[in-house]
Amino acid sequence: MRNSKGLLVVLSGPSGSGKGTVLKELLARNDNLFLSVSATTRSPREGEVNGKHYYFLSKDEFEDKIRNDGMLEYASYCGNYYGTPKETVAEMMNAGKDVILEIEVQGAMQIKEKCPDAVFIFIMPPSMNELKHRLSDRRTEDAETIAKRMKAAVDEIRMSYRYDYIVINDVVSKAADTLDEIIRVQKSSTLHMKEFIDEVLEDE
Amino acid sequence: MRNSKGLLVVLSGPSGSGKGTVLKELLARNDNLFLSVSATTRSPREGEVNGKHYYFLSKDEFEDKIRNDGMLEYASYCGNYYGTPKETVAEMMNAGKDVILEIEVQGAMQIKEKCPDAVFIFIMPPSMNELKHRLSDRRTEDAETIAKRMKAAVDEIRMSYRYDYIVINDVVSKAADTLDEIIRVQKSSTLHMKEFIDEVLEDE
Repeated sequence: MRNSKGLLVVLSGPSGSGKGTVLKELLARNDNLFLSVSATTRSPREGEVNGKHYYFLSKDEFEDKIRNDGMLEYASYCGNYYGTPKETVAEMMNAGKDVILEIEVQGAMQIKEKCPDAVFIFIMPPSMNELKHRLSDRRTEDAETIAKRMKAAVDEIRMSYRYDYIVINDVVSKAADTLDEIIRVQKSSTLHMKEFIDEVLEDE
Repeated sequence: MRNSKGLLVVLSGPSGSGKGTVLKELLARNDNLFLSVSATTRSPREGEVNGKHYYFLSKDEFEDKIRNDGMLEYASYCGNYYGTPKETVAEMMNAGKDVILEIEVQGAMQIKEKCPDAVFIFIMPPSMNELKHRLSDRRTEDAETIAKRMKAAVDEIRMSYRYDYIVINDVVSKAADTLDEIIRVQKSSTLHMKEFIDEVLEDE
């Protein structure tokens, strides 16, 4: 049989790349793809549901998981931990479902070391000009915040060389199409088909 | 700009895998994909056209090309040379066209060393039983020839681990769909998008 285990897909992209919108469209059209829910030690905001928006853990619970190798990746921002619990991701993949993580570049690089057969996709804005335009359109941000985000975007884009695929988000539906195709094509990768080759050869 | 150079696609598969039929269907549906014409020193058979079926070269011409690094890969069978001339492949790729080579495993491995950014696809029969069935259906072959081809197929399939993708040819149109998708998706590979990332970063 072909490898029935699901894929692990890691999605990153700078603020303003529109990766959230692309991801939403991708999830709507791909029934076998599930978004991994992150864990965090920050307090739930109003309306946030445990297990849906985040798994809300205490600092002790989170650090226990780190010690017991229970986190695929994690980082600490503003005094709170954020991370991807291994268990639910593994369960879904073993059930044949593809799992997608939307995470920062640093977390993605942690996963690259642990899961070399994951697929790493980076969402790019069509240009820095367009990125600046998108960030400026968010009326809530002042010039200083925009400049900071532009700098952060450049730092992230510098890391994009380490991803497997670069998808330009010019038109959202096209970017979602490309992501969907990338995921489908991985099912024919030799890594994924190894068991099938083994079986054909045992067969002879 | 995105990398405008075409892709090099290398297709292999054992006799009976149906790779010729899949390739024909793929070429019919993909306007930007061109089949590379091999060179050979064997004599043209009736109806064979120089430059269409093969480039027919003299032994001296072929050996000159080998000496001048003019062959992407070559091999000798039954006293004749067969190979892929570099020049036409490079011209098409520089013009933005994707080029596909249908070659044996040994030739494919020569190309893997010279062109690490080529895509290597191996067409597999659904099973050894089905392969045997397909080879036996060719009424012209006797039992000994079939046994030889089965052994050759096993040897080739053992090399399939070194390809990038394994496409099972169960239904021809589906296999052609998968090949088409694999080729399309390569345009988003980081290798292919490197120039675009460079430019976005220079832009800032």
